Amino acid sequence: MRTRYFNAKIFTGEDREIREGELWVRDDKIEDVVFDGRKSAENFDKEVDCDGNLLMPSLKDAHTHTAMTFARSLADEYELNDWLFKAIFPREAKLTAEHVYWFTLLGFAENIMSGTTACFDMYMFPEAVAKAAVDIGIRNVFCGSPNDFGGMDLIEERYLKFNEYDPLVSYKMGFHAEYTTNQDNLKIISDLAHKYNAPVYTHISETKSEVDGCIERYGKTPAVLLDEMGIFDFGGGGFHCVHFSDEDIEVFKKRGLYTVFNACSNLKLSSGIAPVRKYIDAGLKIAIGTDGAGSNNSLDMFREMYLDAVLSNVREDKDGIIDPYHILKAGISGGAYCMELNDSDVLAAGKNADFILFDMKHPNMNPVNNLLSNIVYSGSPVNVLMTVCAGKMLYDHGKLLTVDIDEINRQCSRLVGDLV
Amino acid sequence: MRTRYFNAKIFTGEDREIREGELWVRDDKIEDVVFDGRKSAENFDKEVDCDGNLLMPSLKDAHTHTAMTFARSLADEYELNDWLFKAIFPREAKLTAEHVYWFTLLGFAENIMSGTTACFDMYMFPEAVAKAAVDIGIRNVFCGSPNDFGGMDLIEERYLKFNEYDPLVSYKMGFHAEYTTNQDNLKIISDLAHKYNAPVYTHISETKSEVDGCIERYGKTPAVLLDEMGIFDFGGGGFHCVHFSDEDIEVFKKRGLYTVFNACSNLKLSSGIAPVRKYIDAGLKIAIGTDGAGSNNSLDMFREMYLDAVLSNVREDKDGIIDPYHILKAGISGGAYCMELNDSDVLAAGKNADFILFDMKHPNMNPVNNLLSNIVYSGSPVNVLMTVCAGKMLYDHGKLLTVDIDEINRQCSRLVGDLV
Repeated sequence: MRTRYFNAKIFTGEDREIREGELWVRDDKIEDVVFDGRKSAENFDKEVDCDGNLLMPSLKDAHTHTAMTFARSLADEYELNDWLFKAIFPREAKLTAEHVYWFTLLGFAENIMSGTTACFDMYMFPEAVAKAAVDIGIRNVFCGSPNDFGGMDLIEERYLKFNEYDPLVSYKMGFHAEYTTNQDNLKIISDLAHKYNAPVYTHISETKSEVDGCIERYGKTPAVLLDEMGIFDFGGGGFHCVHFSDEDIEVFKKRGLYTVFNACSNLKLSSGIAPVRKYIDAGLKIAIGTDGAGSNNSLDMFREMYLDAVLSNVREDKDGIIDPYHILKAGISGGAYCMELNDSDVLAAGKNADFILFDMKHPNMNPVNNLLSNIVYSGSPVNVLMTVCAGKMLYDHGKLLTVDIDEINRQCSRLVGDLV
Repeated sequence: MRTRYFNAKIFTGEDREIREGELWVRDDKIEDVVFDGRKSAENFDKEVDCDGNLLMPSLKDAHTHTAMTFARSLADEYELNDWLFKAIFPREAKLTAEHVYWFTLLGFAENIMSGTTACFDMYMFPEAVAKAAVDIGIRNVFCGSPNDFGGMDLIEERYLKFNEYDPLVSYKMGFHAEYTTNQDNLKIISDLAHKYNAPVYTHISETKSEVDGCIERYGKTPAVLLDEMGIFDFGGGGFHCVHFSDEDIEVFKKRGLYTVFNACSNLKLSSGIAPVRKYIDAGLKIAIGTDGAGSNNSLDMFREMYLDAVLSNVREDKDGIIDPYHILKAGISGGAYCMELNDSDVLAAGKNADFILFDMKHPNMNPVNNLLSNIVYSGSPVNVLMTVCAGKMLYDHGKLLTVDIDEINRQCSRLVGDLV
């Protein structure tokens, strides 16, 4: 199956350039990115006129809990503790695989419609999540999330199972967080990381009280503690990373770990503002996530990118403007590398055909003083005209092509009633 | 001309309720909002099937500089001073009425596509702006913006002219800011306010240095100074209001002044975070604006509402969750009252037919644990299916109906080249 996307502007993601050209796709891969117009464009099964709009790599949501769409706008008025103990935990106790399948599909539908083709998901019922991913056609990378309350005995089995499940699905070692995982269990994680030379990911330094608690328990910050236990010997990353010491930054730098920003969630839950520019200046690897609809409440990576570009301007220790190109790369290739989807990073021959068509005619993209700035500062899901993952068109001008959104909404509306 | 919008859910804006019903429009007014289904629906010139989606009052952008779309993504990497003196001012010096007409149309197109039907605009070439408003069909309320560098001699003439220009256009007394307006000129404003019993609006307490400068000059804050000069004797409001003392809050409360939030601009320009919850608790009147594409860079009122709901959670003196209903009302009726568009506030018989059709089937609106929270925390321009202003449909499922967006983009692309 060969498809030709023509009459396009193209941002490959390899540099800042935007050029006119064509994208040729063969099955699930990019066959070629053609800028000179001299290659003979023949024998395509399908031709897609991009109408002068922009082809760019799709966004990658590097930290989410997709099925938590069930909790969208649930008890927003509660403080964190009440929200967790009165609203979320009692409902999570009632979740079944059926709930997780449909609520994950709902989240994936929103991801796809807003230009995201890969999710780094931490949640329950992985079989249901994997089935939802394959059914709708999005990439799902599981992040293990066991803690002292369960799941430790399942990590290795899941790691082996879901890394062989389907080309759209993979599995990374991970755990919930230092503050929910005791030393014995952290040792299990560290041993597994060494057994498989595997990177490890976890929630880290999301709130100040979490960091303070770790220092009280162990006399050191979570990043230092986990690193000393060998957990990060093969890389990985941390979600949130709002409250890092200089030593934490050094750990992340030394181990090549990803700092994954979740700006909307950190605002809603009063966690703070990550010092994005400081991390960039320190040379840390960065990626961006939505943290799921429970605490966001949308799955809009454009809103996240915008906030990562501007939010730290109002920190006390602000240290200058952030180049939007860094933010765009974090939302695209940063997320891909973080999840080890190394072929979903840029538009180039041989890479995965994971891309979007972005509306250049919408007034929010005009005039073009700086197109990359327009995308980061002014772009939104309204600009996403088309989403392609692994060569397959999943969304086209308002229509989801692999699922029936009305059916998903109906099922979720029914299932959310079970949880009250 | 009678139009029937049927098969809808309706949020009138008068209370938190969402009910199934119909909206009947006669010419530019709402004839009736019908919930009981018993009234006989006959003799309509046009019937619009809302397909189960939500009719709600349109958004009102209570502070903007619409023509500054020319500066979208212009020199984002500059600090404020360089941005103003190297990028903005030299270009503004070259602007003509033709520039302002087309760049204002571009801004209005974005407003309409994102659900906004009224703009409180501070800029140059009011004839060009008024023509653009009437041509596209949006409401434009001018806010006078003279300062020591010009415009003082034109306020009264413009006040009289544009309050009689067209039903879509009106004019409010205003001036740029205390720090650009000397005592003699402030006296002119105060005298005019008293001559016409007119509310007065201005940029106020946007940055800490602006407040410090005023205290240095006069020993008091801008709000106190202006109030003592009688400028707020007939009401009005302030744009930004980031750095208010308790005394400033008292002034705004006593005079019934509007605090107009501009969260995106304040982030981008490092101005700070307005204490939204504190103002709500103090009983201040609130409204929301975009501040124009120069410093935003979009004109997305949904992004503004979202930020006003969550942003002050990360202030040091945060004092609790903000009810999203307050934010939604600020974006709708708050903005309308601020501009004295008192009939564009809610959906009710006799009110202006200024409303939008909001997509309830988009995954970002599902499930419905709390629909108003969904709108504020998860809504975006992608949900705006239709925009109606003064009874006229301006936007419908992706298409602007009163202007040619390709022509606007072409003209703006040409004209932005003149300004370099």
